[in-house]
Amino acid sequence: MSNAIVTAAFQGEAGAFSDEALHAWLGEVRTVGFATFDDVIACLERQETTYGLLPCENTIAGAITRTYDLLYDHRTIKIVGETTHRIEQCLIGVPGATIDAIATVHSHPVALEQCRTFFKDHPHLIPVPAADTAGSVRMVVQMGDRTAGAIGPALAAHQYNGVVLRHGIQDYKDNYTRFFLVSGTVPAKDSTGRVCLALNLPHAPGALYRALRNFAREGYNLRSLVARPLRGAPFEYTFYLEIENAVTGNREKFADCVVLGDY
Amino acid sequence: MSNAIVTAAFQGEAGAFSDEALHAWLGEVRTVGFATFDDVIACLERQETTYGLLPCENTIAGAITRTYDLLYDHRTIKIVGETTHRIEQCLIGVPGATIDAIATVHSHPVALEQCRTFFKDHPHLIPVPAADTAGSVRMVVQMGDRTAGAIGPALAAHQYNGVVLRHGIQDYKDNYTRFFLVSGTVPAKDSTGRVCLALNLPHAPGALYRALRNFAREGYNLRSLVARPLRGAPFEYTFYLEIENAVTGNREKFADCVVLGDY
Repeated sequence: MSNAIVTAAFQGEAGAFSDEALHAWLGEVRTVGFATFDDVIACLERQETTYGLLPCENTIAGAITRTYDLLYDHRTIKIVGETTHRIEQCLIGVPGATIDAIATVHSHPVALEQCRTFFKDHPHLIPVPAADTAGSVRMVVQMGDRTAGAIGPALAAHQYNGVVLRHGIQDYKDNYTRFFLVSGTVPAKDSTGRVCLALNLPHAPGALYRALRNFAREGYNLRSLVARPLRGAPFEYTFYLEIENAVTGNREKFADCVVLGDY
Repeated sequence: MSNAIVTAAFQGEAGAFSDEALHAWLGEVRTVGFATFDDVIACLERQETTYGLLPCENTIAGAITRTYDLLYDHRTIKIVGETTHRIEQCLIGVPGATIDAIATVHSHPVALEQCRTFFKDHPHLIPVPAADTAGSVRMVVQMGDRTAGAIGPALAAHQYNGVVLRHGIQDYKDNYTRFFLVSGTVPAKDSTGRVCLALNLPHAPGALYRALRNFAREGYNLRSLVARPLRGAPFEYTFYLEIENAVTGNREKFADCVVLGDY
């Protein structure tokens, strides 16, 4: 193994689900968290890390459109891989804490909302909104209060020396997030024939149909399609397409598109 | 004017953006807020209100996929209209409060995040996460504390006797949400030729292309397209399509689809 440790940027605090996905995927990696997706892109443009990880889709929340918009705006940053990570919300406390002794449970409102059944089954627990999942774990452990818990990733418990009191407390067990690995310096390791494209289409009958015809004729498979309102023209659209088995096809079909990644 | 007041259900606390959109659209309407989108659907199924309002798309966050999924699962509830409402975040305080005298600003983390520039320009303001935008306005006014503010809709200030200290403090001025008006009892007033459909497609090359061909040949315009992972099969998709100018077309083309609304 080389001495060069892989570096990667993500959005969130240390121990966030994006951080967890990076470690699960890349193994030994030095990760750095930023406040926003924009900051992750800026970090890559400054070439401070080799990779960045940006979520593109969640099975509950749908497409994460900000990621596509940023890659469209920052053309030197390309998708070089993708991974799917299971979002498992954990109840985390300080060492010695128990579910029965906990009174308040801190987390981001979306995470609290995802654990509605758990709160119904444990009516003594009072949900308290916080700015961040991993950050709420850090805060609870720093307070050292056995009556406070937090909801967040198992990695956050490990990161801040908390204890996972219950795994998988989210309502929907099928909660997965798909992430793009992006980079400004390193190309895709092995192209698997996946391509992500942006298409600007006139708002006219059949426009998308005619665009897809080009791809269908090559035998490409459409994996995902995201329609984004054009800025300044709400509810007219840029389409982001992800296609697969494009290895053998005629790449000239992409001439009118912005290629966000070929991986 | 008849004595019968129109009734409508929405997700959120009184004074939420959905509530604001209902009043802006329907004028005199008696609204009732529920904790979740599921609760809004259940209210309509019990026929407690004539209408419900569910957001389907936001210019920043993209498609709100839960709305489409719920309409797919609850076939007696249909889309009967749609409207677009501008999301204008306001800084709200108690009567007598001023921006300079305020120290903490309460709101949902997503709303706080949307006002990043405002917080940068007013570094003495400390953002505090809360479970709800309109709910944070209610809380701040109830506390009667001139050093606390909240971020939320102007309607919430009106609702809870707060004062708008600054309008439109969100970073992106183009922040619009599109809503479906849904009902279990009343059909669309005037069909404008808009139809919302759900299509289950095999994960095979050209499947979406072939489906769109049927619509393109009729001269229908595709307004929006949302791909949703099939439950139990992450990242295989149900497609939700919204099409327009379907007034004169051949409606037999919809035979293989689930029609979520014709409005």
